[in-house]
Amino acid sequence: MISMTDIEIANSVKMEEIGKIAKKLDIDESDLELYGRYKAKVNLDSNSLKKKGKLVLVTAINPTPAGEGKTTISIGLADALSRRGVKTALALREPSLGPVFGVKGGAAGGGWAQVVPMEDINLHFTGDLHAITAANNLIAALLDNSIMQGNPLNIDPRTITWKRCMDMNDRQLRAIISGLGGKSNGTPREDGFQITAASEIMATCCLASSMADLKERLARLILARTYDGKLVKLSDIKGVGAVAILLKDAIKPNLVQTLEKTPAFVHLGPFANIAHGCNSVIATKTALSLADVVVTEAGFGADLGAEKFIDIKCRLSGLSPDAIVLVASVRALKYHGGVKKEELGEENVEALIKGLKNLEKHIENIKGVWKRPVTVAINHFTLDTQAETAAIKDFCNAKGINVSFADVWAKGGEGGLELADSVISLLKNDSEPVSFTYSDDITLKAKLESVAKKIYGASAVEFAPGVITKLKKAEEEGYGSYPVCIAKTQYSLSDDQKKLGRPEGFTLHIRDVRVSAGAGFLVAYAGDIMTMPGLSKVPAANGMDISDSGTITGLF
Amino acid sequence: MISMTDIEIANSVKMEEIGKIAKKLDIDESDLELYGRYKAKVNLDSNSLKKKGKLVLVTAINPTPAGEGKTTISIGLADALSRRGVKTALALREPSLGPVFGVKGGAAGGGWAQVVPMEDINLHFTGDLHAITAANNLIAALLDNSIMQGNPLNIDPRTITWKRCMDMNDRQLRAIISGLGGKSNGTPREDGFQITAASEIMATCCLASSMADLKERLARLILARTYDGKLVKLSDIKGVGAVAILLKDAIKPNLVQTLEKTPAFVHLGPFANIAHGCNSVIATKTALSLADVVVTEAGFGADLGAEKFIDIKCRLSGLSPDAIVLVASVRALKYHGGVKKEELGEENVEALIKGLKNLEKHIENIKGVWKRPVTVAINHFTLDTQAETAAIKDFCNAKGINVSFADVWAKGGEGGLELADSVISLLKNDSEPVSFTYSDDITLKAKLESVAKKIYGASAVEFAPGVITKLKKAEEEGYGSYPVCIAKTQYSLSDDQKKLGRPEGFTLHIRDVRVSAGAGFLVAYAGDIMTMPGLSKVPAANGMDISDSGTITGLF
Repeated sequence: MISMTDIEIANSVKMEEIGKIAKKLDIDESDLELYGRYKAKVNLDSNSLKKKGKLVLVTAINPTPAGEGKTTISIGLADALSRRGVKTALALREPSLGPVFGVKGGAAGGGWAQVVPMEDINLHFTGDLHAITAANNLIAALLDNSIMQGNPLNIDPRTITWKRCMDMNDRQLRAIISGLGGKSNGTPREDGFQITAASEIMATCCLASSMADLKERLARLILARTYDGKLVKLSDIKGVGAVAILLKDAIKPNLVQTLEKTPAFVHLGPFANIAHGCNSVIATKTALSLADVVVTEAGFGADLGAEKFIDIKCRLSGLSPDAIVLVASVRALKYHGGVKKEELGEENVEALIKGLKNLEKHIENIKGVWKRPVTVAINHFTLDTQAETAAIKDFCNAKGINVSFADVWAKGGEGGLELADSVISLLKNDSEPVSFTYSDDITLKAKLESVAKKIYGASAVEFAPGVITKLKKAEEEGYGSYPVCIAKTQYSLSDDQKKLGRPEGFTLHIRDVRVSAGAGFLVAYAGDIMTMPGLSKVPAANGMDISDSGTITGLF
Repeated sequence: MISMTDIEIANSVKMEEIGKIAKKLDIDESDLELYGRYKAKVNLDSNSLKKKGKLVLVTAINPTPAGEGKTTISIGLADALSRRGVKTALALREPSLGPVFGVKGGAAGGGWAQVVPMEDINLHFTGDLHAITAANNLIAALLDNSIMQGNPLNIDPRTITWKRCMDMNDRQLRAIISGLGGKSNGTPREDGFQITAASEIMATCCLASSMADLKERLARLILARTYDGKLVKLSDIKGVGAVAILLKDAIKPNLVQTLEKTPAFVHLGPFANIAHGCNSVIATKTALSLADVVVTEAGFGADLGAEKFIDIKCRLSGLSPDAIVLVASVRALKYHGGVKKEELGEENVEALIKGLKNLEKHIENIKGVWKRPVTVAINHFTLDTQAETAAIKDFCNAKGINVSFADVWAKGGEGGLELADSVISLLKNDSEPVSFTYSDDITLKAKLESVAKKIYGASAVEFAPGVITKLKKAEEEGYGSYPVCIAKTQYSLSDDQKKLGRPEGFTLHIRDVRVSAGAGFLVAYAGDIMTMPGLSKVPAANGMDISDSGTITGLF
């Protein structure tokens, strides 16, 4: 049992100076830009990175609202691999301030499987999110200024799709009217803010492979249309250079460490619904050029996170996961078997077995569609019973699927050794390259149908009025070869969060689509996706404090 | 003649590692938190700082729209003092991104008198402004969330005075309606953004002497009123701890260097109209505990910057300037003598002599009201003639005022030696403590009248309807002992920017007042003060670029 909070555990462990952590990966001190003693940006030439290691993707079944602990498992697995003598590095997303102050729970792992310095990582870190916020908002200011200053590009203010952003849970800014107060204050129009992690700049930086590539992506960002319907891009308002300047450090990966001193690249973090939900391509490639095994994760369940990791990140960057860890929990499986949230603490093997259908579908996708070796990791929670855990193991054994019990939250790397051994055995076999869910050359509509049917298990896809026209227009305007990024609930394989387990015979509803030209994908909305969260009735911020000498409490 | 741009000059000089710069002030490496090789936060216990050095304040006559070059003179003076063997440190404000992308001109000096690394200082630096933005906006989100979640404090949304902020020139956000789109999106209300430098959090951080003091100041921030008229403070919405956590690093001073390797504390930068316009108290006190002479500056002309430096910063912190440098330029004096902007490049001794009235009034204030030793620095601009410079010297000599010619933009510290010698001679005499313009115990109205009459030279003060009532209410609510912070145009001693020279017999109009309880002063608005600038027709951002290998052009 752990009676310490995450921050108490983090503070109880003495960190290594980051230069020593970098040495484990043979990074030269001169390639480090220090941010204090325990954080550094790694300044390698992104064009000259040679892949050396194997890539392990950690994903999960459809989660409960409390999450499945993918980050914690990723960190514990990496520490366990290090304990087994494998030269390992992590590649993880970095947290956003919104959730930190909104709900209790950061994105730096938990218990004895954390990346540190956790306070810094969960707060301003090396300023990447602030830089993205500034870059995003400079674009908005330049766009509105162009309209204000005589509107030489003939921009129609009603067509502006570029939103401002803020790294905060602030629902008051979701829908606003800006530009009020007279002629000198801009042009009145409907407007709104997103949280920074949901911004297209975040996705764009994550997928950029170098400064040159970033500038090309920035140039093609779509901001609005002219009164005669032509696209207005960032290059049209001459903002590419200035925005790239603001992002020059943000695209360099950050190096930190786990509590057990495993090197960890923690770099950028886009949403996993309207974007692709994983850390930067540059961080993953940097890690792969230095370590023998790189453990990375993708947001939400495998239907969202792993699908986008493969069909977007791998497709656009040439990466391929050599093995996949599918995280499941007793809690979530019971939830999929129909148990109410309040009763998840009670043993219920029958419901759990019913819920295994959800796990089964994800295994089929990983092995059948993407052709990846997979191991299931049972993430241990305190109230799980032996009978419940055994039921999961029996199920996997019967199907010939590797399965391991992992208790890294309570035990750190020690609790992940069984999983590490399973991963090591999977990595011994050279795997064939990843298969994508669909090929580049089919229509955007066919791509959406392909994901819906093959991955989600839908029997049909329904498009809202106008969506088919928008898809055709996107193809006409040159975006037909893009992969698709479907935004839907993470709680179900379907677009209805109440359909748990393995829903069948359902129709997926595509309500709207939008080209993210900087990122290089087409976003399709299967549901109301909130891109600016709100604070809860009692925000986590209310319980936080810092002493006069600087000791933080209540952060986690 | 200089044919290089500021950024080219900055890049042509090899910097010292910041650890070596710190050694010049006997700062131990263990007290530095490095941000890359050339920037560090200095982590001294702010409660244990002992004053060791003498403080030199650089201020100016009322400027032309192009500015008088106070920062450049401050840097050149510090370098000249270093050349004379004096252990010198600078204490300067840090720049805001808004002006960087808006107009050509940063806040890191110019020519051969710059602080470096200028790109970093002018961009994200060590993240202080981003932290202030986040802290400010967390308060706004917590406040609106409290109203959203049943409004237990009975807050009247129409009375909210706390604005969100952004470090950007973005006029589109000056006046907005937020909270639109239905019940789940907050409460519709009139709202608006300020630029971060204009936020009360900026002023509050600047005046805080320690984390304990910061928390006390944050607790008393005024956000709104209840429906029955009571003040709603940050402590009421339980936000003090979380906001202080966001600011924990931002209140630590940043150490960088000049091109000539003089240590420079560049830390925080509030507006000089609605706030007090100088760097943090912690940075000034840190510098004074380490160096024998500290050169600092205050924004705009001496009527705004020096007055607030003395009546606000010195009063609240116990600091006192041992000498004042009053920067004047041939250009500005001709401007005060009635020459049009377009003709300032032509010799006009007659107009210049007429304009000396402006200089005269500032000298009278410094010597007569504040009882400070003063030296006038003539900041050389390329087109100035010898006859013009001689006229200023003659004027000062006739009045028995020290005067020096300074050409630090073209020559660095070498061009500031005459000024340095003048300052050294002033500092030889122990000066009496500074005299304030008014005492704490007179009414707020009397304080405003005192500044208007004694410093600006007004013959009367007119208060808009309701202002007197607000002043009385502020006194009833416990803010009567606060100093006052008058926001007015920087171009004139009066509140009318067209009244150049030394206006007399004018009435100052106070349109509104507002208590800044975190900063600890009463803001009085003598004119329309823009707290969110806009971008110009051709923003500086349009001309910026960064090469694939990271070389920045067009930043300055």
